[in-house]
Amino acid sequence: MAKNLTTKILEAHLVEGELVPGREITIRIDHTLLQDATGTMAMLEFIAMGLPRVKVDLAAQYIDHNLLQTDFKNADDHAFLTSAAQRFGVHLSKPGNGISHQVHLERFGKPGLTLLGADSHTPTAAGLSMLAIGAGGLDVALAMAGHPFSLPCPKVFGIKLTGKLQPWVSGKDVVLEMLRRHTVKGGVGKVIEYFGPGVTTLSATDRATIGNMGAELGATSTLFPSDERTREFLVAQSRGDAWVPLTADEGAKYDEYDEIDLSALEPLIACPSSPDNVVKVREVAGTRVDQVIVGSSVNSSFRDLMTVCRMLEGRRIAAGVSFHANPGSRQVLENVAQQGGVLMLLMAGVNIHQSGCLGCIGMGQAPGTGQVSLRTFPRNFPGRSGTKGDKVYLCSPETAAASGLNGVITDPRDMGKLMAWPGVENPDRYLVDDSSLIYPLPPEEAARIEVVTGPNIVPFPEFEAMPEHLEATVVLKVGDNITTDHIMPAGNKILPLRSNIPAISRFVFEQVDASFPDRAQAAGPGIIVGGENYGQGSSREHAALAPRYLGIRAKIVRSFARIHKANLVNFGIVPLTFNNPADYERINQGDTIVIPDLARLVREGSVEIPLLVNGVGMVALLDVSERQRQELLAGGTLNTVRKGAA
Amino acid sequence: MAKNLTTKILEAHLVEGELVPGREITIRIDHTLLQDATGTMAMLEFIAMGLPRVKVDLAAQYIDHNLLQTDFKNADDHAFLTSAAQRFGVHLSKPGNGISHQVHLERFGKPGLTLLGADSHTPTAAGLSMLAIGAGGLDVALAMAGHPFSLPCPKVFGIKLTGKLQPWVSGKDVVLEMLRRHTVKGGVGKVIEYFGPGVTTLSATDRATIGNMGAELGATSTLFPSDERTREFLVAQSRGDAWVPLTADEGAKYDEYDEIDLSALEPLIACPSSPDNVVKVREVAGTRVDQVIVGSSVNSSFRDLMTVCRMLEGRRIAAGVSFHANPGSRQVLENVAQQGGVLMLLMAGVNIHQSGCLGCIGMGQAPGTGQVSLRTFPRNFPGRSGTKGDKVYLCSPETAAASGLNGVITDPRDMGKLMAWPGVENPDRYLVDDSSLIYPLPPEEAARIEVVTGPNIVPFPEFEAMPEHLEATVVLKVGDNITTDHIMPAGNKILPLRSNIPAISRFVFEQVDASFPDRAQAAGPGIIVGGENYGQGSSREHAALAPRYLGIRAKIVRSFARIHKANLVNFGIVPLTFNNPADYERINQGDTIVIPDLARLVREGSVEIPLLVNGVGMVALLDVSERQRQELLAGGTLNTVRKGAA
Repeated sequence: MAKNLTTKILEAHLVEGELVPGREITIRIDHTLLQDATGTMAMLEFIAMGLPRVKVDLAAQYIDHNLLQTDFKNADDHAFLTSAAQRFGVHLSKPGNGISHQVHLERFGKPGLTLLGADSHTPTAAGLSMLAIGAGGLDVALAMAGHPFSLPCPKVFGIKLTGKLQPWVSGKDVVLEMLRRHTVKGGVGKVIEYFGPGVTTLSATDRATIGNMGAELGATSTLFPSDERTREFLVAQSRGDAWVPLTADEGAKYDEYDEIDLSALEPLIACPSSPDNVVKVREVAGTRVDQVIVGSSVNSSFRDLMTVCRMLEGRRIAAGVSFHANPGSRQVLENVAQQGGVLMLLMAGVNIHQSGCLGCIGMGQAPGTGQVSLRTFPRNFPGRSGTKGDKVYLCSPETAAASGLNGVITDPRDMGKLMAWPGVENPDRYLVDDSSLIYPLPPEEAARIEVVTGPNIVPFPEFEAMPEHLEATVVLKVGDNITTDHIMPAGNKILPLRSNIPAISRFVFEQVDASFPDRAQAAGPGIIVGGENYGQGSSREHAALAPRYLGIRAKIVRSFARIHKANLVNFGIVPLTFNNPADYERINQGDTIVIPDLARLVREGSVEIPLLVNGVGMVALLDVSERQRQELLAGGTLNTVRKGAA
Repeated sequence: MAKNLTTKILEAHLVEGELVPGREITIRIDHTLLQDATGTMAMLEFIAMGLPRVKVDLAAQYIDHNLLQTDFKNADDHAFLTSAAQRFGVHLSKPGNGISHQVHLERFGKPGLTLLGADSHTPTAAGLSMLAIGAGGLDVALAMAGHPFSLPCPKVFGIKLTGKLQPWVSGKDVVLEMLRRHTVKGGVGKVIEYFGPGVTTLSATDRATIGNMGAELGATSTLFPSDERTREFLVAQSRGDAWVPLTADEGAKYDEYDEIDLSALEPLIACPSSPDNVVKVREVAGTRVDQVIVGSSVNSSFRDLMTVCRMLEGRRIAAGVSFHANPGSRQVLENVAQQGGVLMLLMAGVNIHQSGCLGCIGMGQAPGTGQVSLRTFPRNFPGRSGTKGDKVYLCSPETAAASGLNGVITDPRDMGKLMAWPGVENPDRYLVDDSSLIYPLPPEEAARIEVVTGPNIVPFPEFEAMPEHLEATVVLKVGDNITTDHIMPAGNKILPLRSNIPAISRFVFEQVDASFPDRAQAAGPGIIVGGENYGQGSSREHAALAPRYLGIRAKIVRSFARIHKANLVNFGIVPLTFNNPADYERINQGDTIVIPDLARLVREGSVEIPLLVNGVGMVALLDVSERQRQELLAGGTLNTVRKGAA
C-alpha cells in the first residue's frame, strides 16, 4: 500500500503498538531538545535517574529563554545547565547562541529522525523533515535516559501545495492561511504532512516557519519531504552528508486532506489575540503601529532577517515606532553582518538584541498601554507579551518591515512602488561558527565535571515507595473544575523557583488556601478530595510534583483531567475516583482515611479500592495501566526507572 | 591674577554669590540632561510649573536606563517622555540610541558651557570641556524652566598630567589611579581640573572616561582644557563650529594639587566592592572570571569598543566566560559595524546588546552566585549588579578583553606576546546618524502635541499653601538616624512607581510601620517627630514628596540631614528642630500639636516657633533662608515658581 511519509517514519521508529489513529504507540527517539525554562527541572529529573550519561543519539540543551538576568537565578540556571550538559554528554548551546529550534536546524537536524523537545515549537525541525514533537520535561528526561516515548497514534492531515509564492509573500503567510482555514484546533491529534509540486518552491527555512506554527494549529507535528531543497540547506551548513531523500509514496492516502495554491496567497496577518484570528493585511492596513519586532523561533532564518535589512536599507523607521530585531541565532546575525545587514538595520533605527526568545516569551519588550505591536512571532495569546490588554498582531517579516517604515500596518506589496522585491535567498554557504556550542566530552573526562548548583537549584526530591497500608488526613477538600493554575500558580514570582521544589511548594493552592503547605506538611501523609474535572488546564508537572513533596499520597475526586492524572502517577500520587459519586459529600476536610492493604491491591491489579473514612467503609476506583501500577508502587516513575537501572 | 579654567567658566556663568570655596553661588545653566529613571518625575515637576516650553538653551531627554520592558510601565514611561519632550521643546533620544552622556558628547556638547543633569555621571561632558554637574530631578526641572542653579562654590583640585600612556594602558587607568590615590571621598566639594603637557595625549573620549568617574571620587565636576584634541573630536562629529579654545591661565593656582606621570601608569583594576579598591592588574592576575561586560557610560567610545574588537579578532572567548558588549551609542555601534567590528565580536562569541546602561544599573546581566564579573563600568557597589554578595571588578576595555580571552584576570600587556598593540584611534570622520533623535518642534506645532500618560504616570500633586494656623496629629514618632531608605524604600517593587506619587506613597515607612500611609491619610494634617540625623542617606526627593502627599505638614526632630531638610522645604513640609532637645520625650504618637499663627511667624522671619502640645507650650526652631520661607509659605518650590510665573 502506498504510504505517506508520517507512516514511514513512525514505522521505522515503532517500538510498541499499532499505527491506528488514537491508539497508544511507543516510538524510539533519536534526538532530544531542552531549553532553559523547562530544562532545569527536566535535567534534575534526568540526574535523579542516576545514569552516568544520556542514552540517546543526540541530546541538546539550549539556553535561549531566561536571558535577562535580573538577579542571580537565571545566571545560576545557565551555570547549572552548562555543567550538567558536560557531565552527562549533552550538547550545550550557550546563552546568546540562538533559539533552540533554529540552532538545531542549522547544526544537528537530520531528515527522517525523531526529535522530542520540551518546548511546544519543537516541530520547527519539519524544515529538515524530522518527526519532531513537543512534550513535558519528564518525557524528555526519560527519552534522554533511552526510554521510548508513548503517544496516541496521530492521524495524518495531508496538505497538497501547488503553485509558487508571489513576491512579498512568504512562508509565514502559508501557515497563517492554514490557521485561517483550520483554527487553533485544526491540527489536534494530527501530523500535518505537506506534499505536492509546491513543496519544492519552499526553502528549508520557509518549511521550518510552517512547521513551527503547526503548534498553533494544535498539531502533534508537521512533516515535509526531504528533497533537493533540504540537501541545499544541509550543504550550505557544511553538513551535506546528513541528507537522505524522503517522500510519501505515489498515491499515498491521508486521513484528512486539503490543498493550498501558493500562487493565490496574499500577505496575511493574525489580529489580536489568537493566532487563528487571520485576515488579509489589506483589511487592517492603515492601523497605527507603535512597536515592531522581527525574529523569534518562527521567522528566525537568514532569509527572514536579511529581507528586513534589504527593505530598510537607506530608509528610516517611522518616528513613532520602536523597531526591534531578535536574531534567531548567532549564525544568522553573523551571516547578516557579513553581508552588511547589521549596518542597514542600525542606520534605519532598529535596536538589535542578542539572539534568543526575548519578547516572544514575555522576557522583555512588553508594549505600552494601548499600544499596537506587530511581531513575526508564533503566538499572540492575551497578555503573553507581558502587558494586559495587549494588541499583538502576527505577520511575515515583509509585512513587519513595511509597517515599521510607514508607521501603520502596510501590505508589503505596496513597497513595490518604492523598490524592487528584494527576493533574498539563504546563502549557498553559510558562515559557520560553532564557538558557542560546547560538545560532549569523552565519558572519562565528563565524569570529572562537577555539576554547579546555585542556592535556587535543589535536587529532585527522593520519594518513598507506596506504603503497604495508607493512613492519611484529608488536608483539603475542593469543588469542581480545579485547574493546575489553582494547584500550582505561575507568574513572575513563582516561575523562577521551578528548579527548587521545596521553595515552589510553598505556593501550592496559594489562591485557594494559603495555609495548605503548612497544614499538609504538618499532617504527614495527606489526601486531597475534589469534584469533577480535577486538574484541568496547563500540563505543568509541578502541579503533581510539589503536592507530593508536601506529603500528598492520594487524591480522591469525582473525575480527573487526563494529563494531570498521568502526572500524579508519574510522581507517585494514587489517583482515585469515587465509585459512588455521592460519597464526595461524606468526606470532610480533617477526616482520617485508612486504606488497608493498598499496596497489595495495587500490585494485584484491583480496580476497587476499599477505604475507611473515620472508620466507615466506602469504595474508590483505581483506573490505571499495569505500567502505571508499577510506577505507583515504586513511588513514581523515576523510582521505577532507577529500579530498572539497578 | 592667573585663573584656572574652573574659575573662568564659573565667572562667566555667575548669577549670584562670590567665588569663595564653600559659600553658596548661583550659576546660569546652558544645557540640561534627563534620563528616564530620574526623568519621569523631573518632567512631571516641569509640567507642574505650567510653562509652555523650556527656557534653557538646550534641554535633552535620553531614554537609556529602563530598557527591558518586563511589563507596560517602562514602555509607558518612554511614550510619556517622548510626547512631553516634543510638547515642551526638549531634544529626545529614543530607547536604544545610547547612553545620555555619550550621546550628549557626540551631538550636543560645547566647550565652556554648563550642563546640569539628573544623573551622577553627567561630568562625562568633561571630555568636551563642559562644566557638567549631576543634580536632583527638581533642580534640573527648575533649570529647564530657566532658573539658575545654586551650589556651594567648589574648591579646584588641579592635576598636572605629564608623559604619555604606554600601549595597553588607557583613560580608565588614569581615573583608577586617581581613585587609588584619593579614594571615593577625594573629590568631595571640588572640581578636578586636569592640565599640563600630558593632557594633549588624551583624546576627547579618554577625557570623558576620566570625567565620568570623577563622580566616583565624589567630585562636583571634572574639567579639561579645550584644545586641538577637542576640536578634532568635534570636527569628526561634523560639529567643528562648536569648538572654542579654553585653558587655564599660565601659572594658575589651585586649592589642591597633584601630578600624574602618564608614562608610569600600568593597567589597574578596582576590586570588589568599591571603585577605590584599586590594585595593579598583575596583583590579581590569574583570578578565574565568569562574566565580562564592555561598554557603559564610562567606556562608551568607538575607541573603547573597537579596541575590544581588534583584540578579539580571530580569537575566541574562553569557554567558561559569558562576554557581553553594551555599546555606548547607536553611533558607536554603527561605526564599529562599518569597520567590520560587529562580525569580529560575534565570531569571538560576544553577545551584543542594544545601546544603553543595562547591567551598569542592574537592568539585567546580573552575575550568578559566587561568580566573578569584570566590567568596564564606573561602579561596583555591593549588590548594584543585582546579585547579593557579587564580586564585580572595574577595569579598562583592554584588561576586560584580555581576561575574557584567557578566562582569568589578565594584564593586557601580556597580549603583546600574541599580537601587536591595536592602537585604535577614534575616526577622523564619524558616520553620523541622528535618526533616533527627535528635535524640538516649532512652538505652534509643539503646543498641539498631547502628552501621553499611561495609568502609572500621574500628574505632580497639587499642594496647598501653608495654613495660617496649623493643627496637626503626631502620626509617627521615630528615633535617631532614620534614613531616606526608611522613609521611602527603593527596590524592584517600588522603583517602577516613581512617576506615580499616589501609588509610591503606599510604601512610605513600609519597614518601620506599614500602617503609616493609612493612618497619615486618615489623620488629615500630620506631623512626624524624630531624633538626631533624621533623613540621612540617599538624596531621593520622594522621601519628602510622598509623605507630603499623605498630609505631613511639619517634622520636628533633634537634627536633620542636610539634603533631606532642603527636600522638605522644596515640597512644603516645615522642618523644625527642638529648642530644648529634651522636649522630644514630651511628645507622643497620637498627640495633637497646634502652631498658632504659623504662617505669620514664617512670613516675619521668626526663628522661634511656639507650639502647643496637647495644650502645653514648647518652642521649636525654624532655621531656613528667606527664599526657603517663601517656598514654605507657598506650599513648596513649585508653587513659588508658578506664582512667580503668573
